[in-house]
Amino acid sequence: MSAANFADRLLEACAAKGGPVCVGLDPRWEDLPERIRKGHGEDAEGRAASFLEFHRAVLDVVAPIVPVVKPNVAFFEALGAAGFRCYLETVASAREKGLLVIGDVKRGDLGSTAEAYAQAHYDGAGCDALTLSPYLGLDSLEPFLLRCREKGCGAFVLVKTSNPGSADLQDLEVGNLRVFEEVAILLRGWAAGPGLVGTRGWSSLGAVVGATHPKEVAALRGMLPGVPFLVPGYGAQGGTARDCVVAFDSRGEGAIVNSSRGILFGWRKGPLAERHGEARWERAVEEAALEMREALRASLPKGS
Amino acid sequence: MSAANFADRLLEACAAKGGPVCVGLDPRWEDLPERIRKGHGEDAEGRAASFLEFHRAVLDVVAPIVPVVKPNVAFFEALGAAGFRCYLETVASAREKGLLVIGDVKRGDLGSTAEAYAQAHYDGAGCDALTLSPYLGLDSLEPFLLRCREKGCGAFVLVKTSNPGSADLQDLEVGNLRVFEEVAILLRGWAAGPGLVGTRGWSSLGAVVGATHPKEVAALRGMLPGVPFLVPGYGAQGGTARDCVVAFDSRGEGAIVNSSRGILFGWRKGPLAERHGEARWERAVEEAALEMREALRASLPKGS
Repeated sequence: MSAANFADRLLEACAAKGGPVCVGLDPRWEDLPERIRKGHGEDAEGRAASFLEFHRAVLDVVAPIVPVVKPNVAFFEALGAAGFRCYLETVASAREKGLLVIGDVKRGDLGSTAEAYAQAHYDGAGCDALTLSPYLGLDSLEPFLLRCREKGCGAFVLVKTSNPGSADLQDLEVGNLRVFEEVAILLRGWAAGPGLVGTRGWSSLGAVVGATHPKEVAALRGMLPGVPFLVPGYGAQGGTARDCVVAFDSRGEGAIVNSSRGILFGWRKGPLAERHGEARWERAVEEAALEMREALRASLPKGS
Repeated sequence: MSAANFADRLLEACAAKGGPVCVGLDPRWEDLPERIRKGHGEDAEGRAASFLEFHRAVLDVVAPIVPVVKPNVAFFEALGAAGFRCYLETVASAREKGLLVIGDVKRGDLGSTAEAYAQAHYDGAGCDALTLSPYLGLDSLEPFLLRCREKGCGAFVLVKTSNPGSADLQDLEVGNLRVFEEVAILLRGWAAGPGLVGTRGWSSLGAVVGATHPKEVAALRGMLPGVPFLVPGYGAQGGTARDCVVAFDSRGEGAIVNSSRGILFGWRKGPLAERHGEARWERAVEEAALEMREALRASLPKGS
């Protein structure tokens, strides 16, 4: 893990790769290419081996195109210990190929338990950044912030998530604001804390804001200067490049947009399936990543 | 997994064991008896083996005394794949000894990711119940509620946690209520949903409320009839049996109180260390569990 500030590393990687694209690694065994599935058993060990083979091939294809990948640990945990090992190997493989890794773990616990999660996913797995839940408050984030300050790690706190149910709690009204806006105000204070802000004014502590809520994302961008956004919900969940523009500042900086299924499994139907099909699925993954990068580039202000 | 309602199973187990005590399995390698540590290596595999040996011995001691154990997966994840395997083996061992298992995972994610977590911890690990985060709303709980309805599983949603930082978000004022009370109102509706309420009026969907906030716990008990409480914060975190009484209804039903360090590692200092010391640590664990059960019994209304 570099000791350089995470936000600096993120900006640099986005510039180097020519676009703020994150590829979500949400493996589904049923959706893998048949050739890969047939090469391993159908038990947990075999499925985990298939996941790893698939991810390594995906990483080879996307490493020259995108700066960041985001494995969601839930799909790995579902395969038990073999899946957890596959998660660790996937993170290691991505880092070897020069990619930044956001571990999508959405953890949130207190005291020594939060410390154990930080050990597991920063120190152990080697993730550059993690997604975290805000429900338990600032003291639950401290072990993660310690690594942001001392080891160049990053964290993205859930603020406004992309699912419809996000309204249940996040949209409750607290005076003139909603709960997610109150979380944003707390986050603004935490993100400005000592040792977190990089040379270009961005914090290592960011926010997760869903592309499916462009109005809310625009308001949050105004409220949270210097707080980088991780924006899920692009593609399969319905968010477009235009929806995502509001997550960036006027220079086209400050956000990273994630697509998972649209890039990993776009070859299973529609135009990409017609052009490439399963036989050339790697080319379809490449084309989907390139298309997303170009769509974001075309929508963002120049200079990005 | 039994198809009987989780709340019914929980009440029955509490009655059978004579008290609503949950032992939290939060393993810390440094705190294990030296004899166990020396029996295995110091690498992740060795530490995981030590955890498992320790847990099996603890489970043998507490199985006749308490109805429920609660492994916190963070401490296992910190040891990587070997730790995750140890978590699965610990859960299996507890169930073999007739204990109910609450997987303290505090997960919260959306759609197919929530489904993957439910697969991992109910279907895969075999936990009877899980702790969950409410931040993403009801749709994020659906895969878990499905297992509550169809497989006799349970879930405890974080409402008011025991840490000081819980005030940051949970205590924000929403009109005349605070955020955690709004979460309680949402939870009340969700918990009354079809297929969740058992024969004695309690739901399989419960709430996590910290013993460190007795005033709030009392208010929540009034707001949430039929919603069982999982109450952490007893012992090492400062909560007493008297603090916990307000979590129960007038019949002394409806809550389970957790202690982790106080039972697992009480023999490391204080009176239990003087009486038993490390040589007889199992007896100290037994005494700590019996003491806690008696303290709760003495404080609760008769008939419990």
